Amino acid sequence: MAEHISKQFDMELETIRTRVLQMGGLVEQQILSAIDALMSGDIAKFDKVIAEDALVNSMEVTIDDDCQHIIARRQPAASDLRIIITVIKTITDLERIGDEAQKIARMGKTIYQSERYQMPRFREIRKMAEVALAMLRRALDAFARLDASAALELAEEDMRLDDDFAAELRQLITFMMEDPRTISMSIDTLFISKAIERIGDHSKNISEYVVYLVKGKDIRHTSLETIKRETLGH
Amino acid sequence: MAEHISKQFDMELETIRTRVLQMGGLVEQQILSAIDALMSGDIAKFDKVIAEDALVNSMEVTIDDDCQHIIARRQPAASDLRIIITVIKTITDLERIGDEAQKIARMGKTIYQSERYQMPRFREIRKMAEVALAMLRRALDAFARLDASAALELAEEDMRLDDDFAAELRQLITFMMEDPRTISMSIDTLFISKAIERIGDHSKNISEYVVYLVKGKDIRHTSLETIKRETLGH
Repeated sequence: MAEHISKQFDMELETIRTRVLQMGGLVEQQILSAIDALMSGDIAKFDKVIAEDALVNSMEVTIDDDCQHIIARRQPAASDLRIIITVIKTITDLERIGDEAQKIARMGKTIYQSERYQMPRFREIRKMAEVALAMLRRALDAFARLDASAALELAEEDMRLDDDFAAELRQLITFMMEDPRTISMSIDTLFISKAIERIGDHSKNISEYVVYLVKGKDIRHTSLETIKRETLGH
Repeated sequence: MAEHISKQFDMELETIRTRVLQMGGLVEQQILSAIDALMSGDIAKFDKVIAEDALVNSMEVTIDDDCQHIIARRQPAASDLRIIITVIKTITDLERIGDEAQKIARMGKTIYQSERYQMPRFREIRKMAEVALAMLRRALDAFARLDASAALELAEEDMRLDDDFAAELRQLITFMMEDPRTISMSIDTLFISKAIERIGDHSKNISEYVVYLVKGKDIRHTSLETIKRETLGH
C-alpha cells in the first residue's frame, strides 16, 4: 500500500485494527462467561456479563468515531478507505454479538431465578455455543490476517449452526408437548439458542467484509457456490 | 453546505438519498405484504415476499458501492462524509428489516401449510406490525427531512413495542399450557412477533443515525433521558 501519505497514518490504521481485535476479544469473553454462568447457574456472573455490555458498546462508539476522524483528516485512498469501511461494519456486528451475549445472560438469569419444575439442561446449547465461538475466532483471525478464504468455511459452519438450531427447536417442542410444565423454561432456552445462532450469522458477516476488503468484491447475499468461486478463485 | 466542490457532487448525494428512500419504500411494502398474507393465508403472496428479498439485498449492495465510490472519488468534507456514513449504516438496517419481513413470510407459510388444529389468530401481531410500520415510516421521514427529534419518539415507541412483545409472549405461553396441541403454531407465531419487534429496533437505529448526522452526536447506547437532552436541547 504505497499510497499511504505518512507513517503516522499507517500507525493510526494499525491502532484501529488492534482495537477491533481487542473489542473482538472482549465480546468473545462475554459469550464465554455467559455460557459458563449458564452451566453453573452463577447469578453474579450473569450480572457481570449484563453490566459489561456497556463496555462493548462504548468500544464501538470510540472506534467508529476514530474511523470517521481518520477519513475526514487523511482523505485516504481507495484501498485504505476499504479498510476503514470494513472496520466500521465489523464493529457493528461485534456490538450486536455483545448484545446476544447479554441476552443469553438475561435469559439464563431468568431461568435460574424462576421456580423450576426441573433442572435446566444446556448440553446442546453448550455445543452450539462452541461452534459459534469457533466461528467468531475464525472471523477475527481472518480480519487480522486479511484472509479471504475464511468466508467459505464460515458460510458452511453457519449452515451447520442453523441446522443445530432447527434440531434444538424440534427437541424443545417435543419436551413442551410431553410436559407443558416445561414450556416457560423451554421458551427461554429457545431464545438462548436463537441468540447463539445469531452470533454465527454476525461472525459470517465479518468474514464476508474481509473478502470485500481483500478482493474488492461484495459477496454478501450470494450463494455458497459463488462464494467458493470468488474466494478460492476457481 | 458551502464546501461542496461541485453541483455534480450535490446531485450524486441527492441521488443516493433518493435511493435510500426507495429502498425504504420497498422494505415497507415487503412488511405490508407479509402481514397481509398472514391475515389471508395467501401462499403466493408469501412466496412473492420471500423472492423479493433478493431485490432488497441488491439495492443495499448497489447503494453501498455508490457510497464508497463517492468517498474515494470526491474525498468529501466532514459534513458530507457524515451523510455518506449515515447512508451506509441506514441501508444495513433496512436490509435487515427486509430479512425480518422475509422471516415473517416464511413462518406464515409454515403455519398455513402445516396441519393445524385450529385457525391461526394474528390480531395482536397485526397491531404490533402497525406500530413497527409507523416507526419505520417515521425513521425514513426523519432521514429525508434531517429531523433529529424523531429519535426520542422512536425510543419511546420501541419500548412500547418491547412491552407488546412481552405481552404476546405471555399470552402464547398461556395458550400452550392450556392446550399443548397449539405449541408448534405458537412457536411460529412467537418468531413472527419477534421479527416485528426487531423491525422496531432497526427503525430506532435509523433515527439515531439521523441525530448523529444532524447534531454530530452519537446517541446510541444512551438512556432515554440523555436522548431527550441531546435532541431537544434541554
